[in-house]
Amino acid sequence: MENFKEKLTRVEAFVFDVDGVFTDGGLVPLADGDFVRTYHARDGYAVTYAVSEGYSIYIITGGRGETLKRRFDMLKVTGFYPNVADKCAVLRELAEREGLNLANVVYMGDDIPDLGVMRMVGIPVCPADACHEIIDTAIYVSQYAGGKGCVRDIIEQVLRAKGDWLKHTVGMHTVKEGEK
Amino acid sequence: MENFKEKLTRVEAFVFDVDGVFTDGGLVPLADGDFVRTYHARDGYAVTYAVSEGYSIYIITGGRGETLKRRFDMLKVTGFYPNVADKCAVLRELAEREGLNLANVVYMGDDIPDLGVMRMVGIPVCPADACHEIIDTAIYVSQYAGGKGCVRDIIEQVLRAKGDWLKHTVGMHTVKEGEK
Amino acid sequence: MENFKEKLTRVEAFVFDVDGVFTDGGLVPLADGDFVRTYHARDGYAVTYAVSEGYSIYIITGGRGETLKRRFDMLKVTGFYPNVADKCAVLRELAEREGLNLANVVYMGDDIPDLGVMRMVGIPVCPADACHEIIDTAIYVSQYAGGKGCVRDIIEQVLRAKGDWLKHTVGMHTVKEGEK
Amino acid sequence: MENFKEKLTRVEAFVFDVDGVFTDGGLVPLADGDFVRTYHARDGYAVTYAVSEGYSIYIITGGRGETLKRRFDMLKVTGFYPNVADKCAVLRELAEREGLNLANVVYMGDDIPDLGVMRMVGIPVCPADACHEIIDTAIYVSQYAGGKGCVRDIIEQVLRAKGDWLKHTVGMHTVKEGEK
Repeated sequence: MENFKEKLTRVEAFVFDVDGVFTDGGLVPLADGDFVRTYHARDGYAVTYAVSEGYSIYIITGGRGETLKRRFDMLKVTGFYPNVADKCAVLRELAEREGLNLANVVYMGDDIPDLGVMRMVGIPVCPADACHEIIDTAIYVSQYAGGKGCVRDIIEQVLRAKGDWLKHTVGMHTVKEGEK
Repeated sequence: MENFKEKLTRVEAFVFDVDGVFTDGGLVPLADGDFVRTYHARDGYAVTYAVSEGYSIYIITGGRGETLKRRFDMLKVTGFYPNVADKCAVLRELAEREGLNLANVVYMGDDIPDLGVMRMVGIPVCPADACHEIIDTAIYVSQYAGGKGCVRDIIEQVLRAKGDWLKHTVGMHTVKEGEK
Repeated sequence: MENFKEKLTRVEAFVFDVDGVFTDGGLVPLADGDFVRTYHARDGYAVTYAVSEGYSIYIITGGRGETLKRRFDMLKVTGFYPNVADKCAVLRELAEREGLNLANVVYMGDDIPDLGVMRMVGIPVCPADACHEIIDTAIYVSQYAGGKGCVRDIIEQVLRAKGDWLKHTVGMHTVKEGEK
Repeated sequence: MENFKEKLTRVEAFVFDVDGVFTDGGLVPLADGDFVRTYHARDGYAVTYAVSEGYSIYIITGGRGETLKRRFDMLKVTGFYPNVADKCAVLRELAEREGLNLANVVYMGDDIPDLGVMRMVGIPVCPADACHEIIDTAIYVSQYAGGKGCVRDIIEQVLRAKGDWLKHTVGMHTVKEGEK
């Protein structure tokens, strides 16, 4: 049977939930109806770097709002699907349109609304503090919690498995930066 | 004597305090006099799901402000009582009006202003980090702290006891989502 | 020699620093030059309750800004001294004006700017995570960190020593609330 | 071979990254495109004190925005370089212009974009929770995480090594304060 590291070398795309994955689950409603969320700079670096290396990164979230959109615009993700009630339907369409083999897709989620999608992909993963149903479904549980580097962790693992991590940061003069 | 799980099968309604229960107790005053608070996405999911399954969820809080109100409007709670000085009076009225048997009501609070109400209901519960007087009064102390999933924990336990948890998330195509 | 609990029965007033005591030290500068800080609801309850019981609570801080002032107005503290460069001078004046015996004053601070004042009072105390110089100077180190209940802890201890804690919360109908 | 403490006595300047060093890596994007970050009051005190004692403190960051600039203006740092894509180039220019010997410069960073600069200076240090590549490169790993006092830690160690820490806070009447 194929092990986890071998699976990583076949990854075609990453799909991420937002709340509880890019964040610690904390939601701060503001008076104007928008929400603010706290992201982690090191996750942001990994996303930007992976995209610049040609990786596809999709966001599928039930969340919405201008600030949320802006964050993922800034990170230059491949696709951003907010306000999603049925994640399975969105992922199925996305896979068809882009010709993705779901067996080679990483999905990282943390809560019940992610359960269905976790079962659709070949590489379901989750943060250290995902809900127990998700932890039972994941083939890899990051040592990092949501908002504390779990996104960075899985991106780094895939890029290492493919030989793409730190490829452009070996010399002193070629440091690449995302938002930092 | 009836055990905790048996009590849960008789739950008629949930009543929650806000600060220290839905949040970690953190309060961020803004210049305009409003406060911002940080909620947890997984608590929000549980509240929305339980209400959609027909459960009654009431909020009784000494807090006030537009942002607070907006949060609980969004979660579609059954009743929202802000700016309350005497929680016992509000709960008594509520129980009479709705015909609730207080023996079958869950109340989750964390601090001294909750002591009286904790003693009024049959199922007083609290977050892991409630003040010691509250912990002494609760019949169940969640392993989760305020703002870190204690609301989700008690809702999930009641819905599991009644066979309503994950009822609509078994298949891949029926994932229900709250705000996510 | 008098022990800590005996000292507490003689307390005439509380003096608190803000950053690192009422907060975890976190400062969030905003674009308009103001700062936001995260306070703890249970500290707020204790301050409001103690003041309503007739205790004197003073704030002496190097911090400034409208939001800071508003917070302590709301808690109805006895005196609020912001933007202070020399805390010793302010405390000395305050003590003279109010006729306070510094031997019976509690001061809680967390950092170097508090060192001088800690040495002026009879009951210097600090949060669990104060800087090491302050910890060396305090006669009592709370088990709670700044922003996590250290203010509540020392207030509760003094009021318990004097028989004033929970005095008005014994019955169900006399729950007193601060901002909650 | 020279040990760490001896190196500290030769420090000519401090250079700091911002995200993950002055902060815990948390980034809160706002609707207007700016970011808010949470700084630590005790780091702020150390920076202000060191600068007032004549130390040079530079900030080199990939971050940008009005709020970020305002924070370091307020701390009166010696130089502030935002929006930097190539930290090595900026540091090299800075060193030439100011006549700094890079062997005697402290650099504290936490992530891949800091790797190149960490290798340029004689005293590369990092927070407890830096990424593993940075931890491997640092000659000193603070026991404090980013945003939790790691800046204060390295400044205090250098100033102690040079006999400048607490120099102006021995007496009660000469407490110096930064923003507190």
